[in-house]
Amino acid sequence: MKAQNYGIVYFCPKKIFLIQDVQKPSIPKGTRDFGPQEAIRRQYIIDTIRKNFHTYGFMPIETPTLENLSVLTGKYGDEGDQLLFKVLNSGDFLKKSAAEDFEKGSNHLQTKIAEKGLRYDLTVPFARYVVMNQNNITYPFRRYQIQPVWRADRPQKGRYREFYQCDADIIGSDSLLNEVELTLLLHDVFGDLGISEFELLINHRDILYGLAEYVGLKGQEIPFCVIIDKLDKIGAAQVEKELLDLNANDQVPELMRIIGSDGNNSEKLELIERILSKNQGSTYLSSYFEHLKSIDHRKLNIQFSLGLARGLTYYTGMIFEVQVKNVEIGSVLGGGRYDNLTGVFGLQGISGVGISFGLDRIYDVMNHLNLFPEKAQSTTRVLLCHLDNDSRLHAFTLVDQLRKKDIPAEIFPDQVKLKKQLNYANKLEIPYTIIIGSDEINEGIYTLKDMRTGEQSSLALDDLVNNLNASS
Amino acid sequence: MKAQNYGIVYFCPKKIFLIQDVQKPSIPKGTRDFGPQEAIRRQYIIDTIRKNFHTYGFMPIETPTLENLSVLTGKYGDEGDQLLFKVLNSGDFLKKSAAEDFEKGSNHLQTKIAEKGLRYDLTVPFARYVVMNQNNITYPFRRYQIQPVWRADRPQKGRYREFYQCDADIIGSDSLLNEVELTLLLHDVFGDLGISEFELLINHRDILYGLAEYVGLKGQEIPFCVIIDKLDKIGAAQVEKELLDLNANDQVPELMRIIGSDGNNSEKLELIERILSKNQGSTYLSSYFEHLKSIDHRKLNIQFSLGLARGLTYYTGMIFEVQVKNVEIGSVLGGGRYDNLTGVFGLQGISGVGISFGLDRIYDVMNHLNLFPEKAQSTTRVLLCHLDNDSRLHAFTLVDQLRKKDIPAEIFPDQVKLKKQLNYANKLEIPYTIIIGSDEINEGIYTLKDMRTGEQSSLALDDLVNNLNASS
Repeated sequence: MKAQNYGIVYFCPKKIFLIQDVQKPSIPKGTRDFGPQEAIRRQYIIDTIRKNFHTYGFMPIETPTLENLSVLTGKYGDEGDQLLFKVLNSGDFLKKSAAEDFEKGSNHLQTKIAEKGLRYDLTVPFARYVVMNQNNITYPFRRYQIQPVWRADRPQKGRYREFYQCDADIIGSDSLLNEVELTLLLHDVFGDLGISEFELLINHRDILYGLAEYVGLKGQEIPFCVIIDKLDKIGAAQVEKELLDLNANDQVPELMRIIGSDGNNSEKLELIERILSKNQGSTYLSSYFEHLKSIDHRKLNIQFSLGLARGLTYYTGMIFEVQVKNVEIGSVLGGGRYDNLTGVFGLQGISGVGISFGLDRIYDVMNHLNLFPEKAQSTTRVLLCHLDNDSRLHAFTLVDQLRKKDIPAEIFPDQVKLKKQLNYANKLEIPYTIIIGSDEINEGIYTLKDMRTGEQSSLALDDLVNNLNASS
Repeated sequence: MKAQNYGIVYFCPKKIFLIQDVQKPSIPKGTRDFGPQEAIRRQYIIDTIRKNFHTYGFMPIETPTLENLSVLTGKYGDEGDQLLFKVLNSGDFLKKSAAEDFEKGSNHLQTKIAEKGLRYDLTVPFARYVVMNQNNITYPFRRYQIQPVWRADRPQKGRYREFYQCDADIIGSDSLLNEVELTLLLHDVFGDLGISEFELLINHRDILYGLAEYVGLKGQEIPFCVIIDKLDKIGAAQVEKELLDLNANDQVPELMRIIGSDGNNSEKLELIERILSKNQGSTYLSSYFEHLKSIDHRKLNIQFSLGLARGLTYYTGMIFEVQVKNVEIGSVLGGGRYDNLTGVFGLQGISGVGISFGLDRIYDVMNHLNLFPEKAQSTTRVLLCHLDNDSRLHAFTLVDQLRKKDIPAEIFPDQVKLKKQLNYANKLEIPYTIIIGSDEINEGIYTLKDMRTGEQSSLALDDLVNNLNASS
């Protein structure tokens, strides 16, 4: 049969194929496929976070993957601008460009040929959303957002080019209760996930600013924070050196002792109150701890950490970070209070506080610590096997009844040897099987086999349903 | 206080702002923000689809948003290639280009400066995934995938540039049982969503090929299908004309009568068997209907539609489409059996069958028909209000206890007038409120108010929990 040319698609009945060189496919550097087990486990983490967001009264929003570059550019610093994925304009993208635009190089030409970029974080899109919907929002606005973000970063361990952020923010309320609630929320999330060995590090920007002033760096608070933020990475000696390079005074060694002091939270707070009298930050933290006393039956893992700075962010009050003990992967959560979320878009006075869970790192941690429960392994509870075509048809009506009872069930679709069917159940770790033959059809009694223990029980349909429900 | 220049970020303690022209932000054409109510409802649809995918034993996979253009290009026809969003290479993207590349125009330059694109559908990434993981997959492979896709299409009603597909496919099995199971699955999904007024249109490619031969268009099956596919859009007369332009014989009027015949499914099948004797397609459909008889207590809305063609797709067997009655929005589901999913990537012989739910159109349909249940309106069940600081602290311990019982609860964080707190509950349609004052603190009895009916009940904590759980 002669193939007919229809565009690039050639056609023969029962076969459509493309005429092109067949190449081994691949995926872009820094991106990942997730197979069934990984995808089920990622969903388990997302479901756990979402459930807790709902319990704490947060409401979801979603923003588009594509944002105008005018919205994104200039919000993440020079380095951030470089890490934005930029999307070519559709159609003849060169129609607004001349040869001189090409000669001026990539940075210039880009502004002519790409107007859109991929979401880089969830905060700037949230700020944009608030500005565009300011008249329809009821404050305080408790919003959550669970979506992927993209950064053209150099891929390395725990750092991907596409990864999920799970943000919860409360805006339009100055109450300290919000910080307290976020503290409890994150404890509930990590608790539900079975991550018990973690530490919530807290600090306050005003304390850092006080410490900057203490070493004579008033007016240089941000560079001071940037240096302090590197403490874990570069060590105390190098931090000391960089502070002195910034023209810090001779109290730097004393500052390093303060930051490194290993008292408990109250002792550290007293120390700070002694050094920086009347500091807004220490007053705030002291009130924060006071609030937590009313629920002191809760086991909270909070560590007041004078070395926590969270770099060049827009935070202006309390700051948060969660580190998992005994796993080297960086922080799995960050957050803090900010004064001016939407100022860059012309709307002043929107303050708030928020936290952001890093799904991909939480996954890595749980995988490393083997924390995924059995139910996060597969979807199907029971596979129905069959010996001939009649039993296959009977199995089909049975699987339909089990599904009506919300029991995830499968029937092996093809008529193949029983061994192959059981092999399928084993490979997919389906916990139960039922084999249908003529006895089962005639008597309506089914033998449920536990594939892990080999245990078998003979059951009528109702008991089968109860049994499978109870075991899930 | 003098601001310090630190890169583009200017700093004063308690304020970080960017020096730039403040502009009104916007989002790209054809993209959408989803506010809380829309996002909750979209999630409700996704959860319903996912639950049913699990019940039918499908397992999730996720593929990256960014795919190599070498994987995407040439898979969706020339028009599809034009509709791909292409992502600029990172860094100095012009480093591999010369001035002559610029002069050759957009289509040429693009190949030099963009290696990646955004996912256009879920089928090509799935095929790529199967090829790359062929040795780790257990067949039959029942995979589902719920992710957004992007097309640089002209935005119009029911057509967006970013939209979600929800795909379920079974590959590596020829059994007709798979078509039957997908038929039940989609009925369960639409049933759970409350969409009862729909029709599942089915047809078989072999029947269409037989009909093409019937009008003398053997070898021109694809153009034939493309024309038939436009029947709804351009009408019977125009279809007839285009078929004749293609050199169809004088049986075209008879063909139009066959396609337009309004008998029931068996009558149409008999008609086809009479005209196209021994057609594989009609044999298949007859067996499909036979299978469904074993579960005829199920009310199924299946319409054998000879005019259903599903255009230029890779389907080779049965084809599916779901249309909702009395809503003009196009199909909300499409699908079918294919012979050669992965041939373009060099792996032969992977056949299967799948369906794809269109989340965004389902949302539009449900919105139009007012089908969202109350629980898809808000997250919080109860707001705790307070009269002074002591009652606020008491409310805080109470909200913590309610949340421990999985009741989504909120406390108004700031100390403001009661009216403002109740106003917040009303605006967000939070169904219940509790007002805490000194009586509540002393007696531990709380007045739960139903905000819709005004009904009030006085309850101790345990009854409060039971009451809120029962009403949810």
